[in-house]
Amino acid sequence: MSNLTINADRLIGRIEELGSLGRDAQGRLVRVAASDMDKLGRDRLVGWLDEAGLEVAVDRIGNIFGIWQDDANAGQAPLMLGSHIDTVIDAGIYDGCYGALAGLEAIESLKEAGFAPARPLVVAAFTNEEGVRYSPDMMGSLVFAGGRDLEEALASVGTDGSVLGRELERIGYAGQHEPGFLKPHAYVELHVEQGPVLEREGIAIGAVENLQGISWQRITIDGEANHAGTTPMSMRRDAGVAAARVISFLADRAGASPTPTVATVGTIAFEPNAINVIPSRATFTIDLRDPDEMHLREDEAALAAFLDQLAASAGVTVHAESLARFEPVTFDAHVVSLIEDGAKAAGLSCRRITSGAGHDAQMIARIAPCAMIFVPSRDGISHSPAEFTASDELVAGANILLGVAARLAAD
Amino acid sequence: MSNLTINADRLIGRIEELGSLGRDAQGRLVRVAASDMDKLGRDRLVGWLDEAGLEVAVDRIGNIFGIWQDDANAGQAPLMLGSHIDTVIDAGIYDGCYGALAGLEAIESLKEAGFAPARPLVVAAFTNEEGVRYSPDMMGSLVFAGGRDLEEALASVGTDGSVLGRELERIGYAGQHEPGFLKPHAYVELHVEQGPVLEREGIAIGAVENLQGISWQRITIDGEANHAGTTPMSMRRDAGVAAARVISFLADRAGASPTPTVATVGTIAFEPNAINVIPSRATFTIDLRDPDEMHLREDEAALAAFLDQLAASAGVTVHAESLARFEPVTFDAHVVSLIEDGAKAAGLSCRRITSGAGHDAQMIARIAPCAMIFVPSRDGISHSPAEFTASDELVAGANILLGVAARLAAD
Ligand SMILES: NC(=O)NCCC(=O)O
Ligand SMILES: NC(=O)NCCC(=O)O
Repeated sequence: MSNLTINADRLIGRIEELGSLGRDAQGRLVRVAASDMDKLGRDRLVGWLDEAGLEVAVDRIGNIFGIWQDDANAGQAPLMLGSHIDTVIDAGIYDGCYGALAGLEAIESLKEAGFAPARPLVVAAFTNEEGVRYSPDMMGSLVFAGGRDLEEALASVGTDGSVLGRELERIGYAGQHEPGFLKPHAYVELHVEQGPVLEREGIAIGAVENLQGISWQRITIDGEANHAGTTPMSMRRDAGVAAARVISFLADRAGASPTPTVATVGTIAFEPNAINVIPSRATFTIDLRDPDEMHLREDEAALAAFLDQLAASAGVTVHAESLARFEPVTFDAHVVSLIEDGAKAAGLSCRRITSGAGHDAQMIARIAPCAMIFVPSRDGISHSPAEFTASDELVAGANILLGVAARLAAD
Repeated sequence: MSNLTINADRLIGRIEELGSLGRDAQGRLVRVAASDMDKLGRDRLVGWLDEAGLEVAVDRIGNIFGIWQDDANAGQAPLMLGSHIDTVIDAGIYDGCYGALAGLEAIESLKEAGFAPARPLVVAAFTNEEGVRYSPDMMGSLVFAGGRDLEEALASVGTDGSVLGRELERIGYAGQHEPGFLKPHAYVELHVEQGPVLEREGIAIGAVENLQGISWQRITIDGEANHAGTTPMSMRRDAGVAAARVISFLADRAGASPTPTVATVGTIAFEPNAINVIPSRATFTIDLRDPDEMHLREDEAALAAFLDQLAASAGVTVHAESLARFEPVTFDAHVVSLIEDGAKAAGLSCRRITSGAGHDAQMIARIAPCAMIFVPSRDGISHSPAEFTASDELVAGANILLGVAARLAAD
């Protein structure tokens, strides 16, 4: 099957069509997990799975699967491809959708070409990968891999106060299958890099060999509301100033770190949030990452020590809650080398790379050999409407996925 | 009339009743200007004005007046007492309401005692003194005093996107009178101190001789959204970190200032406000105050310089918009001395004091001699449900107001 290629126009057309679904009044792509917007995307995906003649299955955490099997291979462990189609707020159109649609495209192309796989092929779109509405991120694949209790996950309360299980029922994606009902032979995920490395080095394909660890926390600082005009600076217990100290501490520490540590405060709220009232409460999230588990623990310990010291010096109380904690993961060496082989055979430049983002493959690695394929992201931008990868680069990545899938499904 | 006193039970009962109106589901007092909650308070106040036999007048900016005049004094410039009944979010029950209800109480007591004033007496409750929903603060008294164009003020857009003029119509308080239809002979406002000075010094009555200047700004910082996991610290243009630098700068500078400068960031919002997205935009407000106009200008200049430097060093763009700017005001020496005389005659300790908060008297001072009376605030707390002044202190202040009013209305 070495000359087989995917249908480039179909893939690009679907990416663009999916990217048009789930936009708010300002035109922002806001297809956050299990929302009405997510339903629009899910319904469209299921339509394409149907058209491709795949059997559609949805599990209880809302993961969607398109299964291609026949009588000859029905008993074998399936090869799984995929990613997710939920997005962040004001997202680009590639993150996740590219991998899910390229997985479908690879399977559809193999099917149309009369390929006779030794095992079923499955494309997966996992629920709430982004983690923007419900924590942790990669929730659907984590539950699928047995890493989190299903009922606990369904009871997750979102940033908008919604409950995931009820939202899945509401949008019609609380499926019947138990998560984990498929036992993958292997899982391969194609994704845009979302970082600057491939573009900077002029390389077409990243063979992802590992992913960094992720620590998400929600911090709540309680001080005392008081009048902005009458309260001397020395008498304040200002929760907002304390929050600013934490944000500055994290940026300074990560900025000066010799390791590739990153630290981000992406969300914040003050209470009562009035112009002339000293904030009584500040709530914000912290996203800490490092490819080395030891460094990540050092970062967490330094943060905890800073929060303790702040509580003592600023007269505030500080509460830290873990929202997600994933150790760094190393991918399967064989699958990684198949990606390198595929790039070489296609005459494409390739390098091994570490993923800065979390991915569903990171969760599925608990139950099956996994690896990922990256293609370049212009200016390294993602989680932004400015996210962009050129069509020829997208098509090149999808063809590598096709080749690796054909190899892994051949025996 | 030197032995006349107010009806203490009626005053305290009304303060408590008004404090029970305008509470949200969590029990927080949220009677912000021109809201449904504000209407509840306004309707109750108007009921009391009616019961007291005062003529009720509402002007086009929604200021409520209760007028006591007779044929003998109808042509004279009225003595005005009052304050406001709008509140901050999660407010105490004294700020503003105390002064408005004590103004009514003083007039009602004089009326009941058969006092024959040489001029009309008016109690005023001004619109949007707090400035929490619409900027600037003291808007109703500012418009009344001719310091801001009426139409411009009515077009003010609130923090919730509402338009003040439409909200006043909706709640039935877009009155017929032109603001300024009354020309006060003098204006006296009784208020809780909202600061720690009187309590700390064990003094019953503050004769307010001046108020500090206020500078309110809204700052918008634009950076670039990007992925929290994949974007190296050195490649970020993080609007949230830039906002934290400004908050820290202000707290450090005001904290170290030899002048009584205060600086507060009471509101903040990040966009897109997602846990794993570097903030593309941070919007926050700054409340800067100093009793000395020259110092306030220095503070504003230092802030502007810091913002310029931040824009250059953090790769962000910074936009600053003025929401309110009031110079420090000195009250009328004669009215201040009448307050001191009244306290002395009543055997109460008294000191001259500077107001840290802004007040309607600060605006009315543009058109009439003004002063204010303060009573102690427990622990100096205000703009908080913990705001508290004991009943005997409230009654003592109201009796001083009564005496000063009797003096000023006598000729
Ligand atoms: N790939 C990706 O953006 N995943 C979302 C989870 C995260 O890494 O923040
Ligand atoms: N007295 C009072 O709290 N006024 C509100 C305006 C301000 O000073 O912030």
